[in-house]
Amino acid sequence: MQVRKAVITAAGRDQRNLPVQTLIDREGEERSVLSLVVREAVRAGITDVCIVVWPGDQEPYGRLLADDGAHLTFVQQKEARGYAHAVACAQSFVKDEPFLHFVGDHIYVGAEPSGAAKRLVEAASVEGCAVSAVQVTREALLPFYGTVGGQPLPRKPGFYRVDTVLEKPSPTEAEQRLIVPGLRGGQYLCFYGMHVLTPVVFEILSAFLSESPTARPSLSSALAVLAQREQYLAMVQAGQRFDVGVKYGLFTAQLALALSGQDRDEVLNQLLNVLAVREMLSAKGA
Amino acid sequence: MQVRKAVITAAGRDQRNLPVQTLIDREGEERSVLSLVVREAVRAGITDVCIVVWPGDQEPYGRLLADDGAHLTFVQQKEARGYAHAVACAQSFVKDEPFLHFVGDHIYVGAEPSGAAKRLVEAASVEGCAVSAVQVTREALLPFYGTVGGQPLPRKPGFYRVDTVLEKPSPTEAEQRLIVPGLRGGQYLCFYGMHVLTPVVFEILSAFLSESPTARPSLSSALAVLAQREQYLAMVQAGQRFDVGVKYGLFTAQLALALSGQDRDEVLNQLLNVLAVREMLSAKGA
Repeated sequence: MQVRKAVITAAGRDQRNLPVQTLIDREGEERSVLSLVVREAVRAGITDVCIVVWPGDQEPYGRLLADDGAHLTFVQQKEARGYAHAVACAQSFVKDEPFLHFVGDHIYVGAEPSGAAKRLVEAASVEGCAVSAVQVTREALLPFYGTVGGQPLPRKPGFYRVDTVLEKPSPTEAEQRLIVPGLRGGQYLCFYGMHVLTPVVFEILSAFLSESPTARPSLSSALAVLAQREQYLAMVQAGQRFDVGVKYGLFTAQLALALSGQDRDEVLNQLLNVLAVREMLSAKGA
Repeated sequence: MQVRKAVITAAGRDQRNLPVQTLIDREGEERSVLSLVVREAVRAGITDVCIVVWPGDQEPYGRLLADDGAHLTFVQQKEARGYAHAVACAQSFVKDEPFLHFVGDHIYVGAEPSGAAKRLVEAASVEGCAVSAVQVTREALLPFYGTVGGQPLPRKPGFYRVDTVLEKPSPTEAEQRLIVPGLRGGQYLCFYGMHVLTPVVFEILSAFLSESPTARPSLSSALAVLAQREQYLAMVQAGQRFDVGVKYGLFTAQLALALSGQDRDEVLNQLLNVLAVREMLSAKGA
């Protein structure tokens, strides 16, 4: 299975200034958040990237993406019907191919500069099926994530065959339906926000969305159906991901990028320097 | 002397994405860099703010400034003739009043939340003359700043009567012309990027600019003339300023804001957490 296309959602109406925010990447280059996420896809071998935007955002975002190495297509999400609807808007771009998908407001930082998306795309290519990246997550964080249940693949550490997907399950639901053999008690496999999906997911989403003109299905509900229709795996990613849309999200992502990149020493020095000066100034009451 | 107007320059062509970058302020609110600098002026009692922009930038910047508490005027700098020319573009806005001026790509962080501009404006109001904020700076940093020479004011610690201003002096020039009584050897008074100026500075700049259509005078050269024409003071500011246009400038400014604001503990925790996880991940090679 070859994955050439990626779908990045960047249409959240409350975060429309986010893609133009800048960070310094691991190589020390200043880039917009949007450019960073496009490059994550390009490092995974993607040649065609579709960005799902709110109407009117194409022009300012397009200016940020001059030379990131992929062919770009903008698709508009014209109704505020949520995240899974935004993914569904990319159907005519994806057509009948498997595709990489992740959200435009997360930055992924592993220890390998090659990227989380690359590892995921390689796994999907080898296995020839849909694969979602997951992280082993403690019970207290279940209210924030889609969570999968399934069975470990024999002789493939970190891979699971998914049989159940629940969006933000309660602890009771999770205990009844999402226990995964081999994980410690109170630990679950939660989505990492990055998937390789087959076009079957568009059929499933279309059916959900056509139930009513105001239906707002979750992506998890569609992936739960996908798991019944074809082989669908979860793969554990060890790297960190940072939601840059939350308070101090950009700051924290910048710190993680810098600490795993070429400017590590420079940034640690700067950090200690600011800490020291702030202490001095507050001692002086300046 | 009453200071009601402020001129903020934000027309640098290499930094046109900077004003839309966001930071969390000391009160824990997310704001654009442009909104932060406007609020610095508003805290100083300014009611009318003029922002000097490159043509075309007014619309995107204007959207960032809905409710910062001042009346806003945008003035275009239509020729790339440098920083002092940008200041001169605000002459018709300022007319015959004294005005606060600072650059749009610096964030000032003192220990008092009331702001560096407030202290400066208060000093200018009391003294009834132009006052520039300065910092005691070591010789190695002279290549980056305008630097003043002068005499300490009796019974006013931290205040100096300016007699000389040089833009980015060499160590030899500084030693010959900018020694200030009372400072330790190798220390100088360098501009902090914030001034209360009288409208006389526009006359001086006009004369410099009309010498040739390509003249690019420095603000320091105009202030050197100002010091000859009227009383002009320098006031030492103890707080830090951060050039958010340099590499990691936004990150460093965010850290300083957070460490001196209400989210101090939260951000320190987050910092230690990211440091710890990065160490763990790189130990694992994840």
